[in-house]
Amino acid sequence: MAKDKSPRRPRAETPKGFRDYFGAEVTERKAMLDKIAEVYHRYGFDPLETSAVETVEALGKFLPDVDRPNEGVFGWQDEDGDWLALRYDLTAPLARVAAQFRNDLPSPYRRYAMGPVWRNEKPGPGRFRQFYQCDADTVGAPSVAADAEICAMLSDALEEVGIPRGDYVVRVNNRKVLNGIVESVAEIQRESAFPKGMSVQGAAEFQELKARLVAQTDNVMRTLDKFDKIGQAGVAELLGPGRTDQSGARIDGLGLPDYVIRGFLAFLNARGATNAETISRLREVVRLSPTGMEGVDELETIAALLDAQGYGPDRIVIDPSVVRGLGYYTGPVFEAELTFEILDEKGRKRQFGSVAGGGRYDDLVKRFTGQAVPATGVSIGVDRLLAALRAKGRAGGESHGPVVVTVMDRDRMADYQAMASELRRAGIRAEVYLGNPKNFGNQLKYADHRKSPVAIIQGSAEAERGVVLIKDLALGAKIAAEASVEEWKSQPAQSEVARADLVAAVRAILDRG
Amino acid sequence: MAKDKSPRRPRAETPKGFRDYFGAEVTERKAMLDKIAEVYHRYGFDPLETSAVETVEALGKFLPDVDRPNEGVFGWQDEDGDWLALRYDLTAPLARVAAQFRNDLPSPYRRYAMGPVWRNEKPGPGRFRQFYQCDADTVGAPSVAADAEICAMLSDALEEVGIPRGDYVVRVNNRKVLNGIVESVAEIQRESAFPKGMSVQGAAEFQELKARLVAQTDNVMRTLDKFDKIGQAGVAELLGPGRTDQSGARIDGLGLPDYVIRGFLAFLNARGATNAETISRLREVVRLSPTGMEGVDELETIAALLDAQGYGPDRIVIDPSVVRGLGYYTGPVFEAELTFEILDEKGRKRQFGSVAGGGRYDDLVKRFTGQAVPATGVSIGVDRLLAALRAKGRAGGESHGPVVVTVMDRDRMADYQAMASELRRAGIRAEVYLGNPKNFGNQLKYADHRKSPVAIIQGSAEAERGVVLIKDLALGAKIAAEASVEEWKSQPAQSEVARADLVAAVRAILDRG
Repeated sequence: MAKDKSPRRPRAETPKGFRDYFGAEVTERKAMLDKIAEVYHRYGFDPLETSAVETVEALGKFLPDVDRPNEGVFGWQDEDGDWLALRYDLTAPLARVAAQFRNDLPSPYRRYAMGPVWRNEKPGPGRFRQFYQCDADTVGAPSVAADAEICAMLSDALEEVGIPRGDYVVRVNNRKVLNGIVESVAEIQRESAFPKGMSVQGAAEFQELKARLVAQTDNVMRTLDKFDKIGQAGVAELLGPGRTDQSGARIDGLGLPDYVIRGFLAFLNARGATNAETISRLREVVRLSPTGMEGVDELETIAALLDAQGYGPDRIVIDPSVVRGLGYYTGPVFEAELTFEILDEKGRKRQFGSVAGGGRYDDLVKRFTGQAVPATGVSIGVDRLLAALRAKGRAGGESHGPVVVTVMDRDRMADYQAMASELRRAGIRAEVYLGNPKNFGNQLKYADHRKSPVAIIQGSAEAERGVVLIKDLALGAKIAAEASVEEWKSQPAQSEVARADLVAAVRAILDRG
Repeated sequence: MAKDKSPRRPRAETPKGFRDYFGAEVTERKAMLDKIAEVYHRYGFDPLETSAVETVEALGKFLPDVDRPNEGVFGWQDEDGDWLALRYDLTAPLARVAAQFRNDLPSPYRRYAMGPVWRNEKPGPGRFRQFYQCDADTVGAPSVAADAEICAMLSDALEEVGIPRGDYVVRVNNRKVLNGIVESVAEIQRESAFPKGMSVQGAAEFQELKARLVAQTDNVMRTLDKFDKIGQAGVAELLGPGRTDQSGARIDGLGLPDYVIRGFLAFLNARGATNAETISRLREVVRLSPTGMEGVDELETIAALLDAQGYGPDRIVIDPSVVRGLGYYTGPVFEAELTFEILDEKGRKRQFGSVAGGGRYDDLVKRFTGQAVPATGVSIGVDRLLAALRAKGRAGGESHGPVVVTVMDRDRMADYQAMASELRRAGIRAEVYLGNPKNFGNQLKYADHRKSPVAIIQGSAEAERGVVLIKDLALGAKIAAEASVEEWKSQPAQSEVARADLVAAVRAILDRG
């Protein structure tokens, strides 16, 4: 019996749901985030970088959009028995910071944060357990001027990264309007539903219905939030009798009466041709709810503030169908949508859709201090926005790699390194081939793999004559693709220059490319 | 009995050993890392961003510089029972990536990585459980030309971030030389110790001593590595009888005989006035060890390669006292040291010391694939280098905050936001005060807290006359510090300009400052 088994080698794999980012994937994202940070900075926002690890106590036991406690995060117990976890977003750490440093931070406190967050959720295609978020929030500003500022800043950020005006719209709504609708929709629709009035029993049932609606506010919101995805008919089914989805699964409905559902649909469709028209329609729909009316007034103020700064309806649109799933919003909510079309995985045209969202939330800091602190903010979906820029060819990645100095004679490594060094000092990205130089073909394959624009070659014959060979690899590839064998053999993509002219000759090729 | 206790509020605290970074702390580090990345990019290195989470299997159970298994990392079990952990450095993930993507990556593969790592170690002053690392490595290049390149690149990076030539030195040594010393030091010293030869018993003991030395290589290295900290006498004690440290604690020694210890000290002091002199002395010291001689040859090559590119002994120094504690180095090792003096916490002058280190390691990828892959790299101590830049006033942080547009009349918020918007469009960082505007003093306190250079004021009287007041806060502070009450009252730091001249007037103050 063989007792000794050689130990199994570790698997070289990322954990399930995690991935690595290489080269341009890193630099393109960084370039995008740098541009966004520049805009945020210009608006007076300061960067904040919190640690990746928080106490579970400080994070709270709930992911905002997950109902189950203690799920959704990566957590562990430290040596003192305290539970720690990786942050699942950048808002919970901000709430902790705002409470911890409330006596030191300026008030209002404008901050932005960019970095990875972690979710212990089932991974799927394009759905990872670590991903970037990019948030900007203002803590301690009760005025809707703070919300308006966030919307303007979001517009500027989108344009700065390369989404031209006209290709995006920031849609704004208000939770107070939504709550007002829930409070008063039954009341408002009653007249048309019961033109002859209600019986005593009917009136009692009606009171019960109104109370049930308010109690179910969150469920109603979540249903209305599906408007974009499942349309008017889908929302009506979910508010009413229930729905069978594409997979055949049955989803229970909220069982609301038809006349109430009609009211919600009227609200979702209240968007008019102009912001003024939308506001006037909304006022009509929520007229019986003081909360709702306050919400409409706020929307009107936001639109006016933005208009005064030149952010007109081509960029900012009041849109009642914006709900935002998260339960914690208490006032204005907003969403940036890219309006251009792309081809989806099945080759069908569709609008790119939402790339950022946010709103006002007033209770996050209260958990710690007992005092409500008004806050509003926005989160940009980093991966989605980056995908949009790539789809538009605006991610700004480098199109070529470094110049490669090949090694013909390994005893003259110092000469080759001096060439690379000279190129670098002239600001040209360059490297010496550092693999085994024996097989020259491998060196050119390497240069190809690196997408090098130019290879430098100097054998002993060239060295004696004081020259170098410069191979224009981009041109070479073009010739290889298009030229006949004879043309290819004449190698017009390769030229000989004096060693002293190396930098100038390489520069000329790069400038041409 | 009161059964219902109101639930305790969560504590607003970072976990022990973690911290937050605010404003300039973030931007200064980012500016430094961006400059380093630019240098690395110019050398043909590509960025790599691995996930923060790895399988414990892939990480390996050991921190390289911790002896205890399974300690030092933050880990947890996932739903399948696999152990995951936060990366403790950027080298272990590189080894995993080099193995996982070995068929796709260029070979050699030059990559840089910058990001946080996590250590589950006892926190202390200035010692956190999350901190930044900044690494550059070349995988798959056996030639010492790759090591030389890393040393040149490290020099360039230090100069790029603001450490002038002359204020740093890259010290280079070779593990092969160190191993050669351990192998042959007893042999070399024998003649002087036993001028009349040894007895048979003495010769047997001598063979045993040589074997013990080789078996204790790691302990010897760790002891030699303390040369900088505890000096020649301290090292001699630890190699010999043992040592009592400042706290009175007894540290066991390795129990080596005096004549061997003399050999090690001669080696540590082998540094000559020139690299050539050092190399010649080293050759003398290791002449009996083939490994040691190979190591000296490599050092000679590295110095020659660097010299040919202009990296002379003012920047690159062969120094036998560089050991680097980590066990995994197999060839050249290097360390960047800042040579200027700073005042320590007790006000004493001392040299700033090491800010980066690295070397050649050939076995990290082998864990996964069974095949040894040559690799070499460097890690910059991000926090230490940043501290050095701050000590030299070269961290490049912003000296002032945003222009603050104050709110005199809350009904004219749109006007104030339009002013901020105009300033921003002119590239000037600006914000509107968004707290409660009632107490104007609070607005100026806020501007002060924000280090604002300028406050803009427009009450209804000014608005009617089409003007704004511009308060030069930097000048105001200077006057407040230096002026008499009369001068202060005359308020020369405040001026009135036409509303249309707002941007130009602010620009003039900023340009002056």
